[in-house]
Amino acid sequence: MPHAEVSVRLGERSYSIFIGDGLLDDFPGLLANAQPGLKHAVLVFDENVKPLAEDLTARLNGIRVTQIPVRSGESSKSIAEAQRLWEAMLAERADRQSVVIAVGGGVVGDLAGFAAASYARGVPLVQVPTTLLSQVDSSVGGKTGVNLPGAKNMVGAFWQPSLVAIDTATLQSLPTREFVSGLAEVVKYGVILLPELFEYLEQQAPAVLAQDQAALSHLIAQSCGAKARVVQADEHETSGRRAILNYGHTFAHALESVAGYGTWLHGEAVSIGMHMAAHLACALGRVDTDFVVRQQQLLEALRLPTRCSDVSPTAMWDAMQNDKKVLRGQLRFILPAKLGHVDFVSDVDRAEVLAAIKQAM
Amino acid sequence: MPHAEVSVRLGERSYSIFIGDGLLDDFPGLLANAQPGLKHAVLVFDENVKPLAEDLTARLNGIRVTQIPVRSGESSKSIAEAQRLWEAMLAERADRQSVVIAVGGGVVGDLAGFAAASYARGVPLVQVPTTLLSQVDSSVGGKTGVNLPGAKNMVGAFWQPSLVAIDTATLQSLPTREFVSGLAEVVKYGVILLPELFEYLEQQAPAVLAQDQAALSHLIAQSCGAKARVVQADEHETSGRRAILNYGHTFAHALESVAGYGTWLHGEAVSIGMHMAAHLACALGRVDTDFVVRQQQLLEALRLPTRCSDVSPTAMWDAMQNDKKVLRGQLRFILPAKLGHVDFVSDVDRAEVLAAIKQAM
Repeated sequence: MPHAEVSVRLGERSYSIFIGDGLLDDFPGLLANAQPGLKHAVLVFDENVKPLAEDLTARLNGIRVTQIPVRSGESSKSIAEAQRLWEAMLAERADRQSVVIAVGGGVVGDLAGFAAASYARGVPLVQVPTTLLSQVDSSVGGKTGVNLPGAKNMVGAFWQPSLVAIDTATLQSLPTREFVSGLAEVVKYGVILLPELFEYLEQQAPAVLAQDQAALSHLIAQSCGAKARVVQADEHETSGRRAILNYGHTFAHALESVAGYGTWLHGEAVSIGMHMAAHLACALGRVDTDFVVRQQQLLEALRLPTRCSDVSPTAMWDAMQNDKKVLRGQLRFILPAKLGHVDFVSDVDRAEVLAAIKQAM
Repeated sequence: MPHAEVSVRLGERSYSIFIGDGLLDDFPGLLANAQPGLKHAVLVFDENVKPLAEDLTARLNGIRVTQIPVRSGESSKSIAEAQRLWEAMLAERADRQSVVIAVGGGVVGDLAGFAAASYARGVPLVQVPTTLLSQVDSSVGGKTGVNLPGAKNMVGAFWQPSLVAIDTATLQSLPTREFVSGLAEVVKYGVILLPELFEYLEQQAPAVLAQDQAALSHLIAQSCGAKARVVQADEHETSGRRAILNYGHTFAHALESVAGYGTWLHGEAVSIGMHMAAHLACALGRVDTDFVVRQQQLLEALRLPTRCSDVSPTAMWDAMQNDKKVLRGQLRFILPAKLGHVDFVSDVDRAEVLAAIKQAM
């Protein structure tokens, strides 16, 4: 069947992302191509996608498959869970010729990715993301990790997969709210890098919401391509370029923290955060009101929230000061200059930030 | 004061090893050069070298220093200890601009190295090895890691330091048995790569045992240089070249396992293992008896053991079959062809291996 391919060029760590409706029918061939001669696969999967894991296991005949289910939810991103994976891999005699295949959303991808990065000082990793958020964001770029109490993603590694296989059909079983939440990151790529993707979403919002497979493949391929460009320019987050991916996220992280994790899905918080960032950019004279309204209209057409209530703007400001990015120096906002371009802006007045937050309440 | 410098050339991960008597008097300058603008150091140290850690802390004025002591012994190489380090680093607000400085032997270097590799997906690492074994071996090459129950070094990362500072004066407080044990790895470099180092040891054994500082600096620099050459050719153990560093180690690991960990120091087991390997090479017609005798005489001149008793050769053979290197395929022996050159040899008869073990009993 037709599928899209996005190449991530990172020298000896280069790999391909394949995207298509029903793509996993071809999974054994894709895997054999990425890992020739493979004899042992460690399938780490979200217990919510057990049928898919069983299906993949059945397809991989001739390869010994070790299944490790992981409970859904952020609490699985722990060192204890990583240790459970390492010990299960050891018990199954996994070695550097084995491959870890992560099947599920961001939690499983991050956890299994870190387990792969550190077992025997690194074994190959394949990502099979099954949520829109992980398909357009967390499965691309090599960030893996688990949480420490009070600090998300504080222990981990940059570990690139050898293959990412995205089957848009897996989204059909995703709750609508989660699917919609993932669209926020797609809008983000439009704003920071891809005006044509932004326009596509404006025109195709109904088809996207109806999960038209061609539309989904297109926007996932565009999103992965955009993320690949950024990651290629700054694989290990050293030049700062990679930070443009955090558009809307400084506000979003503060909102998630103040409202309590779980109140908003991550993409919902990002949607509200982008709306706040657009207001801030407008107040600073970096974009006009039309930009703010246009972005808001797209977010709302995709049924994403742009407003929150019941949170204190000053509490959000305080939370921003504890953001990881502040520890490394100044709090920096990523603010749009025009569709497809964002800038880093430091030294923003507290009052301006509070006003921008209030605009989205 | 005069010191030697060995460059490890690994592209953007290149670094220098400095070696000298009293070198740590210059530590602040070396550190400032390797990590310009440093504001926060996490000093992870073996509680046995607490005075040295206090001394280094006092020297690093102007830099905030977080001290984390680690209990001596292999049991500290655990995931629980790594987690303790990560949580302490988080509590002290360590970030990617912080540096982890490992002060002690291989245990602290491996543990702190893994903590550095994984905290915030990687922070800079400086090695200050204080045992001969860690100075000539484990602090060079980027291997870090902790143990799983039943599997040494099973969780870890390749993470190159930005600086290795070796002060030969730190060896004065090392127990003699541990110092001598470290010499086995130096002999190893002589056999696998450096005939002139082997000859130097033959001529200078008394000076070496008396810890003559010039002699120590010379043999440490030669050893680090040899290891750097091997690591440069095979940083991530993918080409197989790096395995020549395991000369004597297949026998040694089996001996350590069968005799019970702690019975023999690692270097002592390596010494006996090299003697067994030489016998095996001789039986296979790869070296003559003179080689076996010459290597034995050097090991004994350095007061290293070449014989063991009370172990069962068949139990050692069985332990070899469980060696990590077997999992990846055939059991391969690293056997000398002449001084300065070793070959990989597979398909060795069980009877030949048992006979070689018995020659060293």
